[in-house]
Amino acid sequence: MPTIPPLLIRDVRPLGAPPVDLLVQDGRIATLGPAIAAPACCVVEDGCGALLLPGLVEGHTHLDKTMWGMDWYRNEVGPRLVDRIENERAFRRASGHDAAAQSLVLARAFLAQGTTRLRTHVDIDTDAGLRHLEGVLRTQETMNAAQQIQIVAFPQSGLLGRPGTADLLDQALAAGADVLGGLDPCAIDGDPVRSLDLLFGIAERRGRPLDIHLHEPDAMGAFSLGLILDRTEALGLQGRVAISHGFCLGDLPEAECEALLARMARLGVALVTSAPAARSVPPLMRCRRAGVTVLAGNDGIRDTWTPYGNPDMLERAMLLGLRYNLRRDDELDVALDCVTAAGARGLGFEDYGLTTGCRADLVLVDARTVAEAVVARPPRRLVVAGGRVVARDGALLPDALAP
Amino acid sequence: MPTIPPLLIRDVRPLGAPPVDLLVQDGRIATLGPAIAAPACCVVEDGCGALLLPGLVEGHTHLDKTMWGMDWYRNEVGPRLVDRIENERAFRRASGHDAAAQSLVLARAFLAQGTTRLRTHVDIDTDAGLRHLEGVLRTQETMNAAQQIQIVAFPQSGLLGRPGTADLLDQALAAGADVLGGLDPCAIDGDPVRSLDLLFGIAERRGRPLDIHLHEPDAMGAFSLGLILDRTEALGLQGRVAISHGFCLGDLPEAECEALLARMARLGVALVTSAPAARSVPPLMRCRRAGVTVLAGNDGIRDTWTPYGNPDMLERAMLLGLRYNLRRDDELDVALDCVTAAGARGLGFEDYGLTTGCRADLVLVDARTVAEAVVARPPRRLVVAGGRVVARDGALLPDALAP
Repeated sequence: MPTIPPLLIRDVRPLGAPPVDLLVQDGRIATLGPAIAAPACCVVEDGCGALLLPGLVEGHTHLDKTMWGMDWYRNEVGPRLVDRIENERAFRRASGHDAAAQSLVLARAFLAQGTTRLRTHVDIDTDAGLRHLEGVLRTQETMNAAQQIQIVAFPQSGLLGRPGTADLLDQALAAGADVLGGLDPCAIDGDPVRSLDLLFGIAERRGRPLDIHLHEPDAMGAFSLGLILDRTEALGLQGRVAISHGFCLGDLPEAECEALLARMARLGVALVTSAPAARSVPPLMRCRRAGVTVLAGNDGIRDTWTPYGNPDMLERAMLLGLRYNLRRDDELDVALDCVTAAGARGLGFEDYGLTTGCRADLVLVDARTVAEAVVARPPRRLVVAGGRVVARDGALLPDALAP
Repeated sequence: MPTIPPLLIRDVRPLGAPPVDLLVQDGRIATLGPAIAAPACCVVEDGCGALLLPGLVEGHTHLDKTMWGMDWYRNEVGPRLVDRIENERAFRRASGHDAAAQSLVLARAFLAQGTTRLRTHVDIDTDAGLRHLEGVLRTQETMNAAQQIQIVAFPQSGLLGRPGTADLLDQALAAGADVLGGLDPCAIDGDPVRSLDLLFGIAERRGRPLDIHLHEPDAMGAFSLGLILDRTEALGLQGRVAISHGFCLGDLPEAECEALLARMARLGVALVTSAPAARSVPPLMRCRRAGVTVLAGNDGIRDTWTPYGNPDMLERAMLLGLRYNLRRDDELDVALDCVTAAGARGLGFEDYGLTTGCRADLVLVDARTVAEAVVARPPRRLVVAGGRVVARDGALLPDALAP
C-alpha cells in the first residue's frame, strides 16, 4: 500500500464539541487539539467549523439485490414474505441481475454519503449458487482501501427447504464470506431445532460469527430467539451473534422482553434494526438500558422487495428517530449512535471512533449539532476514509478507490 | 392583477402518462395534448420529459411555530402533550417569537418545493391573543398570488381551561381566519360536551368549517369522535369538518372502526394524518374503501415540539408510504394522492388538478414514475403557481411572489 501523506483538518467540531484541529498520520487519527502545526508534505483541509462525525456504519443491507441506478422496477408483488422471496428469485433468474455491478454502484453511493463500514447480506441459494457472493466479493475488494465491507452468506430462500443450501453456505464461508446468516427457523424452515443445529454447526466448524434475520413475531419469535441464545451460550459464541430485525421483542410483555434482553446482554448478542414504521420494533431505550447494543441499517434499497431506502445513514438515523419518537437533543444523540459507534461495536468493526489511534474515517457536515445533522441530513462536505479524502460535497473523488 | 402571459410547457408526462405539451392561459390549464402551437407572446418551457405533478398540498402544519432558519433550538422538553404545550407557550412569551417572519420563511420554502396549497393551524391563546394570527395573515397575503393558505384558528392551550379563549377564537374568525380549530375535548378540555357545544356554536354562528386535532387514543378518542359527528350531522356541516390525527381509529376493533368510518364518509368528514411512525394511525386503505378522504401533512416543522419535518410534501408522501407499508407502484400512487388530489378535495381547495380549467399549479420532477417521485423525492425542476413559473431547481425566483 502506498504511503498516505499526513492530513490536517482545521476547525472542526467533533460531535458538536468546541472546534479543534485534527491530524491524521498513516491513515489514523494522530492528534486532536487546538492549533496543530502542519507537518511536512501535509494535506490541509479547512473544516470551516463543520460538525465532525465518525464514518457512518450501515449495519444491514443487501447490496446484491439493489436496482439502484437501473431502470425503474415496477413493483406488483404480493404482500407475504414468501411472495417476495419467490418473486425475487424468479426475477433474478430471468433478468440475469448483475450482483457485482449493482453492489459496486450502491457501495460507492454509500461511501459518497460517508459510510465507511458496512455489513451486507448476500443471497446464497440453490438457483444462484455462489454467483451473487462472487459479485459482492469483487465489490468488497474494489472498495477495500476506503470502505470495510462485511459479507454475510444469507440463505434467503431458507436453509432446509431447498436441499444443498447448507453446503452452499459452507462453501460461501470458504470462498470468503465473513459471517454466516440465518433466517426465521420456524416460519421459513418449519423445523427450528434442526435448522438452528445445522446453522450453528456450520458456524462452529468454520469459526465464524452469525447474523440471523428474525422476522417472526410474538411468541414464535421469542421461542426462536430463545433457541438461538441457547446455542450461542452452548457453543461459547459470546459477542459473535447478531439478531437482525427481532420484531418479536416489540410484541412481548415487558417481563418476558426484559428476560430475553438480559440474556442477550450477557451473551453479547447485538440487535440490528431498520426501524420500520409499519412493524413492531425492539424497544430501543429498554434494550440500551439492559446493555444490548442496538444498531441500524437500511435493509434492502430499491430492489424487488422495496422501492425505499437510501445510501445515506443520516436519513436512516432520522427514520429511527421518527420510529422511536426521539425528539430531545439527547435522544437524537442515540439515533446517531445507532449508525456510528454502536454500529461498529455491534458488528465488530475495529479501530473505530474519533480518538487517537482510530482509523481516520471522518465525515464533515454543515450542522450546528448532532441533532440537526440527523434531522436535516445535510450534504457531506467532506468524507475521509482510511486517512484519505474520498468524497467532497456528496461526490466521490476520481481516485477514491485507489489502493 | 396584471395579465399573465400564456405559458407553454413542452414534453411532460402527467402522472407518468405519455408525453404531452401543456398550455396555460390566464393562469389556468387551457390545453393538454401533443404538439401544441405556441400562441403569441407565449413563454415556452422545455419539460424534457419530466414527470408532471399537480401542485402539492400540505394539509396540516403550524407555520406560526416554526424555527426554520433560526438558531438551533435545543429540545429538552418532557414527554407529555401538556409538557409540550406549556413549554411552547413559555418559550414564545420569553423569546418574542416572530410568527409573521417565521411563517413567511417556511411558506416560501414550501412553495420552492412545489406546495401551492397549504392549511396551517395558528395558535390562539390568552397569552398571545391574536398576535400569531396577525403574523400569519400577513404571510397569507404575501403568498396569495402563488400559494393558497388556509388559516385555522387553533386553541392549542385548550378551549375551556383558559377563560377568554372562545372569544378570541371568535375574534380570530372575524379577523380573517378561514377555519375554526379544536383540540381533544376530553383529554385537554375535560368536558367534551361543553367544549364541543361551545366550539360548534362558534362555527355555526360564523359559518365556518372545522378542523379538530384529535390525539385521544382508543375508546376515549372514539367517544369524542362520535360527539363530533353528532354535531356535524345536527348542524348540517356535511363536507365542512376535518379530523386531524385521529389516532384512535388505529386502535379500535375493526367493526367499531368501520362504523365510525361509514358515518364519517356519509358526513363528508375528512381525515388528516402526518403518518407518525411512533403512533397508531387511521387505517389508510380501509378509510379509502369506506369513502373517507385521507390527506397528509407534516404537522409542526422544526419547532419546540419536534426537530423533524420538511417543507417537501414528496418526503411526507414517502413517510406515509413507509408508515402504511406501501411498496407496490399502485400503492405509491395512493401516497401521492394524499399530498395532491385527496388533499385538495378534503380541505376544499377548488380548481385543483391536471385537467383543462384547473388553476395551473404544476410541479416538474425528473422521475420515471409517480412511485419514483415519492421514494426519491427529486429536486423540483420547475414549479408553476397560478400559471407563472415561481421556482426552478428548488429555488424561488425573485419575482415569485409578485402580485
